[in-house]
Amino acid sequence: MHVGPVTIDYDVLVAGLRGDTGFTSQEFVEAMSFSLKYLRKLMGADETYQPFIIPGGGTSAMESVASLLRRGDKVLVVSNGVFGDRWKAIFNRYSVAVDVLKCDPGDYVKPDDVEKAVKDEKYTLVAMTHVETSTGVREPVEAVAKRIRDKVELIAVDGVSSVGAEAVKAKDNQIDVYLTASQKAIGVPPGAGLLVLSERAVSRLSDESVAGYYLNLKNWVDVMRNLEDGKASYFATLPVQLIFMLAKAFELMDKEGLENRIKRHERVAQGVRAGLESMGLEIVAKRPETYSNTVTGVMVKKANPSEVLKAVLSEGLELAPGVHPALAGKYFRIGHMGWVTPNDVMTTIAVLERVLKRMGEPVNLGEGVRAVQLTYS
Amino acid sequence: MHVGPVTIDYDVLVAGLRGDTGFTSQEFVEAMSFSLKYLRKLMGADETYQPFIIPGGGTSAMESVASLLRRGDKVLVVSNGVFGDRWKAIFNRYSVAVDVLKCDPGDYVKPDDVEKAVKDEKYTLVAMTHVETSTGVREPVEAVAKRIRDKVELIAVDGVSSVGAEAVKAKDNQIDVYLTASQKAIGVPPGAGLLVLSERAVSRLSDESVAGYYLNLKNWVDVMRNLEDGKASYFATLPVQLIFMLAKAFELMDKEGLENRIKRHERVAQGVRAGLESMGLEIVAKRPETYSNTVTGVMVKKANPSEVLKAVLSEGLELAPGVHPALAGKYFRIGHMGWVTPNDVMTTIAVLERVLKRMGEPVNLGEGVRAVQLTYS
Amino acid sequence: MHVGPVTIDYDVLVAGLRGDTGFTSQEFVEAMSFSLKYLRKLMGADETYQPFIIPGGGTSAMESVASLLRRGDKVLVVSNGVFGDRWKAIFNRYSVAVDVLKCDPGDYVKPDDVEKAVKDEKYTLVAMTHVETSTGVREPVEAVAKRIRDKVELIAVDGVSSVGAEAVKAKDNQIDVYLTASQKAIGVPPGAGLLVLSERAVSRLSDESVAGYYLNLKNWVDVMRNLEDGKASYFATLPVQLIFMLAKAFELMDKEGLENRIKRHERVAQGVRAGLESMGLEIVAKRPETYSNTVTGVMVKKANPSEVLKAVLSEGLELAPGVHPALAGKYFRIGHMGWVTPNDVMTTIAVLERVLKRMGEPVNLGEGVRAVQLTYS
Amino acid sequence: MHVGPVTIDYDVLVAGLRGDTGFTSQEFVEAMSFSLKYLRKLMGADETYQPFIIPGGGTSAMESVASLLRRGDKVLVVSNGVFGDRWKAIFNRYSVAVDVLKCDPGDYVKPDDVEKAVKDEKYTLVAMTHVETSTGVREPVEAVAKRIRDKVELIAVDGVSSVGAEAVKAKDNQIDVYLTASQKAIGVPPGAGLLVLSERAVSRLSDESVAGYYLNLKNWVDVMRNLEDGKASYFATLPVQLIFMLAKAFELMDKEGLENRIKRHERVAQGVRAGLESMGLEIVAKRPETYSNTVTGVMVKKANPSEVLKAVLSEGLELAPGVHPALAGKYFRIGHMGWVTPNDVMTTIAVLERVLKRMGEPVNLGEGVRAVQLTYS
Repeated sequence: MHVGPVTIDYDVLVAGLRGDTGFTSQEFVEAMSFSLKYLRKLMGADETYQPFIIPGGGTSAMESVASLLRRGDKVLVVSNGVFGDRWKAIFNRYSVAVDVLKCDPGDYVKPDDVEKAVKDEKYTLVAMTHVETSTGVREPVEAVAKRIRDKVELIAVDGVSSVGAEAVKAKDNQIDVYLTASQKAIGVPPGAGLLVLSERAVSRLSDESVAGYYLNLKNWVDVMRNLEDGKASYFATLPVQLIFMLAKAFELMDKEGLENRIKRHERVAQGVRAGLESMGLEIVAKRPETYSNTVTGVMVKKANPSEVLKAVLSEGLELAPGVHPALAGKYFRIGHMGWVTPNDVMTTIAVLERVLKRMGEPVNLGEGVRAVQLTYS
Repeated sequence: MHVGPVTIDYDVLVAGLRGDTGFTSQEFVEAMSFSLKYLRKLMGADETYQPFIIPGGGTSAMESVASLLRRGDKVLVVSNGVFGDRWKAIFNRYSVAVDVLKCDPGDYVKPDDVEKAVKDEKYTLVAMTHVETSTGVREPVEAVAKRIRDKVELIAVDGVSSVGAEAVKAKDNQIDVYLTASQKAIGVPPGAGLLVLSERAVSRLSDESVAGYYLNLKNWVDVMRNLEDGKASYFATLPVQLIFMLAKAFELMDKEGLENRIKRHERVAQGVRAGLESMGLEIVAKRPETYSNTVTGVMVKKANPSEVLKAVLSEGLELAPGVHPALAGKYFRIGHMGWVTPNDVMTTIAVLERVLKRMGEPVNLGEGVRAVQLTYS
Repeated sequence: MHVGPVTIDYDVLVAGLRGDTGFTSQEFVEAMSFSLKYLRKLMGADETYQPFIIPGGGTSAMESVASLLRRGDKVLVVSNGVFGDRWKAIFNRYSVAVDVLKCDPGDYVKPDDVEKAVKDEKYTLVAMTHVETSTGVREPVEAVAKRIRDKVELIAVDGVSSVGAEAVKAKDNQIDVYLTASQKAIGVPPGAGLLVLSERAVSRLSDESVAGYYLNLKNWVDVMRNLEDGKASYFATLPVQLIFMLAKAFELMDKEGLENRIKRHERVAQGVRAGLESMGLEIVAKRPETYSNTVTGVMVKKANPSEVLKAVLSEGLELAPGVHPALAGKYFRIGHMGWVTPNDVMTTIAVLERVLKRMGEPVNLGEGVRAVQLTYS
Repeated sequence: MHVGPVTIDYDVLVAGLRGDTGFTSQEFVEAMSFSLKYLRKLMGADETYQPFIIPGGGTSAMESVASLLRRGDKVLVVSNGVFGDRWKAIFNRYSVAVDVLKCDPGDYVKPDDVEKAVKDEKYTLVAMTHVETSTGVREPVEAVAKRIRDKVELIAVDGVSSVGAEAVKAKDNQIDVYLTASQKAIGVPPGAGLLVLSERAVSRLSDESVAGYYLNLKNWVDVMRNLEDGKASYFATLPVQLIFMLAKAFELMDKEGLENRIKRHERVAQGVRAGLESMGLEIVAKRPETYSNTVTGVMVKKANPSEVLKAVLSEGLELAPGVHPALAGKYFRIGHMGWVTPNDVMTTIAVLERVLKRMGEPVNLGEGVRAVQLTYS
């Protein structure tokens, strides 16, 4: 129950056991072609969108957005926490101007505020975070996009902790860049960043962009088109074995059905919150409408979060530390994405109940697990 | 017998079959710590060098060298082919000046010429390629380093097709950056760039560099130090499963012994060339002193190289196409790095003999395999 | 939570990924040598006992006991159920006389009764079942052995559902044959029978036995001795890859510690029973002193056991059907052996609670999981 | 190039990486159903034959033939070597009479001689070996069957070193039992015996047979029928993971095509013999018409066979020792079955040439490999 890399299914891992298959092999080309096509579906994109699978992860995918910017462009970052701030840190390395809208920890930036910000200033790009991994808060990206669509050139959404577990509709919401990483709700080892670009975004790829070389999507776009068309192509070496795992994960995802998958994540998240609340614990995300399907931050009063993490680990449960600086030492995080089920929820709540009780946190033993039972009955 | 990704040993692949081990797990931290320490050894570096293992591959490692440059710096690129030219293409994306020294295809840039170039101009960085993967030519990086060491601030060597198979001596030759990729002579799937920086190089890491964010070594240096010291640390997610494979490959490498490994590659390369020459084929590398242990380009007169590749593949042998634009359609490449043995050489030469004969190339059937036998008797 | 084959740890499965290691290879010989030595320890045997690892499983190990019998010998079978009756079915195929002591389903044969039986009749062999897999009843084999040791020549115990999870003391109790199978509490795929023979038993191996060829331990004894001594040896091909998995499982077992392992199974079994009883369910084993660490039979009143199995499987929980003919259609079984933990217990009880409730069985939702929580707090 | 267990393809090994799939799971039942059906095809049998997959290997499959025999039956064993003699050793453990026809090592028993033997005596069963693994001699089982079909009740053929690599036609030749093991030309780890029984053979299964319990086909026949029909069924636990590998191997075999597979083995065997003969070495099998597709025994004059084996192993080639007692110390064996190709032949001959030369055997360096080249040109 980590926020990522998440637990990987062995069927996925085993798909990477290919020793002599290079990047020009037919098998690899087919795996890429399938994965690129499926990525479009996963992002709620259509044929007008160009999918990319590049080396790295969420951060490399975020930085590749610099391929769309030119010297002097203005960027507005909508930040709900650590990974919102990461957008800012990235753009600050380039010759572009960056403004940031922030909120209190556990809260989110309101669509109204974003709308106001783009009225006064002409932004080339507004960059948001769908689910802020540091707090588990979900930004209403649909609502924001609706308000600002006409006023800005490009909208980019970091879907690292949402794609594969939350409703993602790039096309319907006219979002130009939707990105994620292999090791999150997709359930593949870390090693690739995945994104789709709208036609408008693709048309901005040029030698004039501020981007460097490796993460410059202009260098990758033909490779992606060729691979999707079944032709071997090279710019820099792709993570071959990881792509086989990705294709397998997408195959399993397709078998489950994207809607079923999102519903499963929703159901799992409900169980987690029901368990926590019945134990008497406070959730970091302040407003129910921003609860995410993938990450739940949990405040503790008496127990030391890092001690909690060690203790649950010794009982076979891996959770993640809190990383929002404003809440340092006051919370930990439960990741619930990938191949998680109600059984994982039960285990998580059961272990937490016992461990927190032992550590003096005021929890009623048995109340959490009972709430989980009621949720799933 | 591909130039890379090379054939991966199953013991290495299997080491990555870990489903629930995140980047803060003790196992991962240990694998990184061991790998970073071993990387120093592999590069002929000592404790004064800082090792890095970053996501991506050879190209991301090359671009990370921008972390050492500031606006207006001058760079000299010593290029023997496609991957020498890649240094130029990378630096051209940044606000630095780039000069290039080139040579005829199959030849190499002479140390004299490099020495002359750095006399007239003050370069911050000279960037070279140890073994040029496009031609199989080995640059005498030791000799070049000796001649220019006093005249330039930084020397960087792309060892993508050499590290693990050729003598690499960062410290002895006072080379500031030595880099490679996981999928070459190390024998691991693609997914990581590996490099060491001298103290002088590390001291150049700063907010003033021209580098971006993800490939900016300033962002990674503390993470690498912490991991080497056994402490979990995060900047961006590392390819966890790949690191387990890397640690396994390093373990196997250590068991073989680095010197033995280099000798094995040398012996394998000798067999390949003996076989080719006895068949009457011409090698792309023009001068014996530049033959590499890892890649051999082979000129053909009658046969069509891409047809040769298809034909040998159907007999279980994977070779690589020629990619040097000046020799397009005239050659193919044999990669001989990783866990290659004299048995692989025999298979390679045997299949080539039969296929080339069938395609009308003037080869004497049996002469190639006889020469391999004599080499290894 | 199956009664066997149990869920296999991937570390164990992966140990079998060896493609080119034959039965004369040093690696195989080492794996066998280690496994044979460890098997002695696992059985509570000392150097006077001869360990065997033979192809097949529990039944082949049971039948190999015919190697100790000669035409006309008399055998007493102590049967608590299906697998006790299997002893009889086996011996009936040979020219030996077989008597059977039986009990009601869920009950066990009392040591007193065995003692009485061996007073009146001279038996060469008394064969028992330590834990009867069909009911989960544990026979007090120590007590029985103590009462009859002086009156019979050989005592054999089927430890298929006990070895690795219950206290097993071949030497202390002077038991001549203790056997098990790879796929039970040892946690390895099915494919091998494992047993130890006392000196007395070994001395009975002869050409005069009633045994056939493949399962005749006389044919295997030198092979086992050679392999334990590190020498390749052949009678019939052993399951090479399975032995690598077995050695891995034994390595993990040794790391956990045998005593810890047995305590863990005990603790897991307690949780299972606490959960079931708090739900209001009846356990098949009638007497607490015969509760086993490995298998629990569960009686149902309203629910149809085979429907229960289907329903829990759809929630990710695999249980086993009841197989005792006298209780047909009235119960199902929970296996709790191998790498099971309190988390598995919680999941099991939670799913059962919900499923049984749904099926009209009178269970109080939340009571089972609360009892598990209290057990492990 | 071992005679078995042969080198296993990783695709096959990986198919066994299933941790929680028991013998009642739908996946297992499907794998068994498919494998049983394919086994019929592999044996050249039709629907009138009953396929069996039982634990163990070649020897357990051989011993299961006792299920067809009754007290006092007469058996004729046609023995060309060690595994012919094994038939005798097995039947000697039962209350049946056994006669044996033998031949010189390297030779075979002539159909004429078998015909004569069955004229004078009424045999219930004639048992033969298709390819004698100890010498590489192939018995003309078709010719023998034709001559004796009318005179004996049952004909059994041990096809351990032939099935999957030689033409096998149970039905056409009216052979009643054709058997093999998983670890030979099928290319799966050791752990299962595979056989088909004719209707006549099946009708002999009864409680009156001399057979024991575990290898008594009467106990397995309903299980096999149920599993083939897609119904879970139990007599004793089958090697679940191995069956997944077997199904995968059969799938790959089907993809290659049985005829292609046999031709490939023939072609490989031709290359092996061409190489050996051009080196000047003598083959154990005396008559070309008995050369097998799977095993070649090689006589040596000066070199010590066990030293040869060690030396070739250190060059990455695994061969097998000679085991025929009459030729002890005078020969070694090359196995060429499974996923072997001309490349394996070249490697084998090349290494042998060099090693034998070094050991003083009179071989002409380069002649063996040249002959292989000519064979495959």
